[in-house]
Amino acid sequence: MSRAFNFSAGPAALPEPVLRQVQAELLEWQGERASVMEVSHRGKAFIDCAAAAERDLRELMAIPDDYYVLFLQGGATTLSALLALNLAGPAQGADFVLTGHWGEKALENMKPSLKARVAASAKDGGYTSIPDRAGWQLDPSAAFLHYTPNETIHGVEFHDIPDAGGVPLVADVSSNFLSRPMDVSRFGVLYGGAQKNLGPSGLAIAIVRKDLLGRHGRELPPIFELLNQAKNDSMFNTPPTFAWYVLGLVLQWVKAQGGAAAMGERNGRKAALLYSAIDGSGGFYRNTVQPSARSWMNVPFFLPDEAREKAFLKEAEAAGLLGLKGHRAVGGIRASIYNAMPEAGVQALVDFMADFARRHG
Amino acid sequence: MSRAFNFSAGPAALPEPVLRQVQAELLEWQGERASVMEVSHRGKAFIDCAAAAERDLRELMAIPDDYYVLFLQGGATTLSALLALNLAGPAQGADFVLTGHWGEKALENMKPSLKARVAASAKDGGYTSIPDRAGWQLDPSAAFLHYTPNETIHGVEFHDIPDAGGVPLVADVSSNFLSRPMDVSRFGVLYGGAQKNLGPSGLAIAIVRKDLLGRHGRELPPIFELLNQAKNDSMFNTPPTFAWYVLGLVLQWVKAQGGAAAMGERNGRKAALLYSAIDGSGGFYRNTVQPSARSWMNVPFFLPDEAREKAFLKEAEAAGLLGLKGHRAVGGIRASIYNAMPEAGVQALVDFMADFARRHG
Repeated sequence: MSRAFNFSAGPAALPEPVLRQVQAELLEWQGERASVMEVSHRGKAFIDCAAAAERDLRELMAIPDDYYVLFLQGGATTLSALLALNLAGPAQGADFVLTGHWGEKALENMKPSLKARVAASAKDGGYTSIPDRAGWQLDPSAAFLHYTPNETIHGVEFHDIPDAGGVPLVADVSSNFLSRPMDVSRFGVLYGGAQKNLGPSGLAIAIVRKDLLGRHGRELPPIFELLNQAKNDSMFNTPPTFAWYVLGLVLQWVKAQGGAAAMGERNGRKAALLYSAIDGSGGFYRNTVQPSARSWMNVPFFLPDEAREKAFLKEAEAAGLLGLKGHRAVGGIRASIYNAMPEAGVQALVDFMADFARRHG
Repeated sequence: MSRAFNFSAGPAALPEPVLRQVQAELLEWQGERASVMEVSHRGKAFIDCAAAAERDLRELMAIPDDYYVLFLQGGATTLSALLALNLAGPAQGADFVLTGHWGEKALENMKPSLKARVAASAKDGGYTSIPDRAGWQLDPSAAFLHYTPNETIHGVEFHDIPDAGGVPLVADVSSNFLSRPMDVSRFGVLYGGAQKNLGPSGLAIAIVRKDLLGRHGRELPPIFELLNQAKNDSMFNTPPTFAWYVLGLVLQWVKAQGGAAAMGERNGRKAALLYSAIDGSGGFYRNTVQPSARSWMNVPFFLPDEAREKAFLKEAEAAGLLGLKGHRAVGGIRASIYNAMPEAGVQALVDFMADFARRHG
């Protein structure tokens, strides 16, 4: 038995050195004579650990001082519902650009709380492209413009930050967090679940321009009020301490790899390797996304028929390539190649793909 | 360095055999060739693990079939806000019985969403007792009656389930989950965070009578609609998989200990040992809670002055007795003695207390 290459879409692969450290100190964390899972979030050791994670994230993403960094329970879907309550009053509007499943989900979870409008959608094309910016119908009075820079199921990614015309841009970066440098100052809010690029599931991060909070005028449960978390260093209630700790280790690992720029270079190479294996297969493998919108993080592709897709998944698993089944909404194969996937893993996949095509082509 | 006795109020001590198993399989979980943190929640291995945890909890608590068991992101505070939205319409009333800090918190987080009424409160007495049932001003048309069977900060516990007069009883059992047998059929909802008796923080459990969901008539974000979780085996979105897995191991450990009845006997003995050390100290140690309402889980006590309390905490820590500082709201000392605290730990504490009193009395 040994560890395989895990292409799961999330929860997803974590850096092995991180897992080894978690394992080594699982029963006795630092000098605490207890597991990190067992210590109080109000004790000095955990507060230091939590603060270090925030400091590292701020450094890695060059987050300006006028942004809060919040570490919250839950995932991106819960957070989207909370953001709708926190960023707009009930009579205010918000615009949505839809390029896949998760953009639709955010819209569904935000629309009960404000006046939602679809400003652009790629649904008619089966979510294989990004709608031309010139055609977006933006409302300049909207409280914000929401989009999903990377769509995990459809494999569609924005490679530039769109111009939101002065409206705060709110982006669900669950699946491309820290995957390359990103100019935080162009956003009102960056948010996402940790379980793809940053850590285990059950922890969500929100990077929020400070002036956007506390203006909604609603009477919210205090636990829904993000300003309460901002004022309490994300310890307004008991945070998911273990996930926060693992995320901190992942951030240290990203720093050791060279930071966001190095991750971006590596992720670009990984994606290029995989897409070129698909495109060079003489049509045996097919990715249907507009080339300029192809995701660096999630690469869906198809084989000539379902029988061979089934065989591909079975043989891949036997070859130590896991989690490659496509999402049921689109079928086929999907390789998620987040930060923790080494280049050797992508190389192993493309080698397997070439061999499989030779045998089954 | 070795593990100490951890009296932290939550996150709190976990059974050491559970931590050892987590450590052993951290990099390769079962036959998965990946960590449990890395595998998909939609894969067979995790679905089986999740289902086993539900089955064990149903068995341990004898949960009737007409109750859902939900495993949710977050903690009890978030869940209280969600329950208010799910159990009542905005014009409906709910009654609250307050016996400490957490009952107040639930009221704060529920009242923006319904018509909240305090039916009884022990606040005037500093939360050292349970208001006499005869004096509760219950509204028979209330959607539910909320109370907190165990208050961790004030150390006040109901040792019987109160008669709610036909209104569904909603109880935050974060701190006394599975600490003894409890007749689930007497409740509309039992809910709580996992981080005291059941597992790591970031996971909340709701045991909900099926007929209570889906009747509120509100337009909620789908992620706030508990019926969506109920219909999707708590996988409507990505759950906190690692915490769920650890909780499953804790439940197996509770079964191996003899179940809820055995835990109740052991917890009763632990509490009796500690209270008798306090009461037998000739006034050196004082617990101010009405004896019939003293908590089995959280035992706050005071020394003659703050200087000696400070010395007590310092010497206790050196003696391997951790997390004994009282909550800032009440000060003093607090020993949390949840399920995972062995009787040897309480014995070590009372031995230390006797020695300390001898030297500082």
